[in-house]
Amino acid sequence: MVAALLLFWRKGYAATSIEDLVDALHLSRSSLYDTFGDKRTLFLEALTFYSQTVLTNVGKLLQESPTPLAGIEKIFDDLTVGTTAETDAMGCFMVNSIAELTPYDATVTDIAALYSESFQQLLAKSLARAAAQGEVSKAQPPEAMAAYVFNALQGLRIVMKAGATRAQVRAIREITLNSLR
Amino acid sequence: MVAALLLFWRKGYAATSIEDLVDALHLSRSSLYDTFGDKRTLFLEALTFYSQTVLTNVGKLLQESPTPLAGIEKIFDDLTVGTTAETDAMGCFMVNSIAELTPYDATVTDIAALYSESFQQLLAKSLARAAAQGEVSKAQPPEAMAAYVFNALQGLRIVMKAGATRAQVRAIREITLNSLR
Repeated sequence: MVAALLLFWRKGYAATSIEDLVDALHLSRSSLYDTFGDKRTLFLEALTFYSQTVLTNVGKLLQESPTPLAGIEKIFDDLTVGTTAETDAMGCFMVNSIAELTPYDATVTDIAALYSESFQQLLAKSLARAAAQGEVSKAQPPEAMAAYVFNALQGLRIVMKAGATRAQVRAIREITLNSLR
Repeated sequence: MVAALLLFWRKGYAATSIEDLVDALHLSRSSLYDTFGDKRTLFLEALTFYSQTVLTNVGKLLQESPTPLAGIEKIFDDLTVGTTAETDAMGCFMVNSIAELTPYDATVTDIAALYSESFQQLLAKSLARAAAQGEVSKAQPPEAMAAYVFNALQGLRIVMKAGATRAQVRAIREITLNSLR
């Protein structure tokens, strides 16, 4: 599954052939169909797995952070600091799939909408706590701030893929986080 | 050219077949090759044309706006207000192509990097004027604010494609613009 996920992530859905999958999974064509069904089923499973993994990691990170705002900052740091050039440039498998397949693939559109809502709910819960503790401004409701933070994170997955400089990424991180206070 | 552009925009590069192009352009396969070269050449021409069109429009809009900040607001409005569900959901042809093809296609990566830099230069020029006129804060250099605004715009092309609500889009627009002041 992880091998298939990495392949779809790197190449996109349409450009990944059954031959590519057979090679990556070290399976014959017939056992690939027996085990995973067709290419589309395998892709949807990979995207769902990715979605759940990201949401679990983000939820854990936010829960374990010393303060709510520190958790949000950590999400930006994990995205923008200390990653390799290749993973920066691969972007986010969900963002890539949204760009490639929504809105014409209804299942992918549903998975993407659920991911976006769930991610923003996690952010909103932390931002509500951050507001209660005086870490962020109360001028905007937590849901509005969550939509704003989520948008900045989605943007970063595109601009970093298109060669944004370290200085540009730092500016995006800093202005976005400062504006919450 | 516009027919080919719309097709690549809607379907992505890999999913667009020569048959699709032949149908859309009302050409025979051989005259398509004679006129435009291969699929990749046609795609690169479409992406370059799109890039130049967006940059020309953004430059004009910023130049003609009553104040520099009003121009930036207009870019957000044009993106988030009064568009149809389909064009919202198609996203941005450049963002989609970045998601699908960078960094492994070096030519697309170059076109995307040039587009990103040029767009941010236009924004930075307006933001410098806005700062001089007191419309935006001088706390951040224009280039940093430009990277931040550009990132929010790229994010919107993804979140709107993945079904962001009107309230979420309004929140993103409002918090992003307020934070410049």
